Amino acid sequence: MTPTTRFRLDLAYDGTAFSGWATQPGLRTVQGELETWIPRVLRLDTPTPVTVAGRTDAGVHARGQVAHVDLPAEFSAAREGAGPTGPLLFRRLSRVLPDDVVVRAVAPAQTGFDARFSAIWRRYVYRIWDAPELADPLRRNHVATVRHSLNLAAMSTAGASLLGLHDFAAFCKPRDGATTIRTLDRLTIDRSTDGTIEIEVRADAFCHSMVRSLVGALVAVGNGTRDQEWLAGLIDRTQRSGEIHVMAAHGLTLEEVGYPAESELAARALEARAVRTLPEEQR
Amino acid sequence: MTPTTRFRLDLAYDGTAFSGWATQPGLRTVQGELETWIPRVLRLDTPTPVTVAGRTDAGVHARGQVAHVDLPAEFSAAREGAGPTGPLLFRRLSRVLPDDVVVRAVAPAQTGFDARFSAIWRRYVYRIWDAPELADPLRRNHVATVRHSLNLAAMSTAGASLLGLHDFAAFCKPRDGATTIRTLDRLTIDRSTDGTIEIEVRADAFCHSMVRSLVGALVAVGNGTRDQEWLAGLIDRTQRSGEIHVMAAHGLTLEEVGYPAESELAARALEARAVRTLPEEQR
Repeated sequence: MTPTTRFRLDLAYDGTAFSGWATQPGLRTVQGELETWIPRVLRLDTPTPVTVAGRTDAGVHARGQVAHVDLPAEFSAAREGAGPTGPLLFRRLSRVLPDDVVVRAVAPAQTGFDARFSAIWRRYVYRIWDAPELADPLRRNHVATVRHSLNLAAMSTAGASLLGLHDFAAFCKPRDGATTIRTLDRLTIDRSTDGTIEIEVRADAFCHSMVRSLVGALVAVGNGTRDQEWLAGLIDRTQRSGEIHVMAAHGLTLEEVGYPAESELAARALEARAVRTLPEEQR
Repeated sequence: MTPTTRFRLDLAYDGTAFSGWATQPGLRTVQGELETWIPRVLRLDTPTPVTVAGRTDAGVHARGQVAHVDLPAEFSAAREGAGPTGPLLFRRLSRVLPDDVVVRAVAPAQTGFDARFSAIWRRYVYRIWDAPELADPLRRNHVATVRHSLNLAAMSTAGASLLGLHDFAAFCKPRDGATTIRTLDRLTIDRSTDGTIEIEVRADAFCHSMVRSLVGALVAVGNGTRDQEWLAGLIDRTQRSGEIHVMAAHGLTLEEVGYPAESELAARALEARAVRTLPEEQR
């Protein structure tokens, strides 16, 4: 195998016109754009698979997405007078990528870094307007609207029961062999000064559809359809619940991915690989 | 003439897909949408002209736009069991308007209110990213990008000379008989926590292209192309300057319109009418 050097990419994208992160034949995806353009701007003949921290569904956005790509080792140093590869790849990608995906930074990865397996948490925000007069047309592609005004105090109280290590199977689209046990270490529900409700969740990882299902369950409490006991009863079930409405994709944004200090990157990757058996399960 | 009752409309729109505020034959405009839908949802046979506080150009956005419309007096009271006209018109418009224009509120106007002539100030914000890594694809339709990083301290110092009562002819697209004398009472330049530069300006009114020209002149100072003396020399000229770059429309948003207390609305309207001679001049 050709020796390679790993690069970390920091990314943001508007998910509106993408069929999600992951490459799918015939569909426009963020991974597809990057895997098309990276070899092209570096004039490589070989594919350059891109690995991501949080695989997002169709319509979901990202501001703080992180990915890595392994390039032939010759790219690690300055070449052809073009300067180091990080800035070179950054400049060239900035010129060619469509305007709904932005590369914010490209840099050689730290030792042991794996965008997916080294990550220790993912932070998402789901944004909601609960009254038609709150709608800001400039942000309509990344805030969802609900029909009834929401009781944030009731949602916060109910939401507290979700925190900690639980089996979130009730909130997950099942995938064979994939664990649905997660540690939710942050859940905050606030109304910003412009009236937008922001539901922030942070966990070691999220299973498929988990954030949108958690928010759907909280909204049911907030509009009075369900109560706190109902929500608490969903925790540690072992099967998906049909009682939970999965919220629209466009309200959801992956805001940030957390990594440990460089000395722990490799150990964290080993640990995460051990508990996550299927490649398509990590989101 | 049929007696009429005046209603105030609070509006927000994404200017991207509009050819500006003002109705133009064959083009999609915000005024055109409203003047199509208001008579239709109220089942009126007569046109309902809509008067606006700030006529925005193609591509310019609004969050705090204000307009008024005069409706037959029968609409002032509850009718047909449908409740008062304000909430009725609000509900019906909310259902039919395209998703890039939002009516935030409809209410009977205060005595003497004129959306255009009663206004005492308009506040705009122009948003800029001055580095490619700042770009947030979710906001790309309302933030402009410039190639070089900007010196905000130099821009603020130079900008201070623009404050006060001046002839802003150098910054205005000329219109016959229209004054270019304005009072700029606020100009602030800040970088928000996410790195976006926000240039906020407030004046009694702005002549055509004035905000985008002011920002273009400030950007020339910020990137070092021009200096403070050059900017100061543009003030109180009597003709448009060809040295000023007019910034792209999509960075500009009308954020807010100010009105005096109800007791002064009518007096203010009389005063403003006296100094603004041409209907198309007020922006």
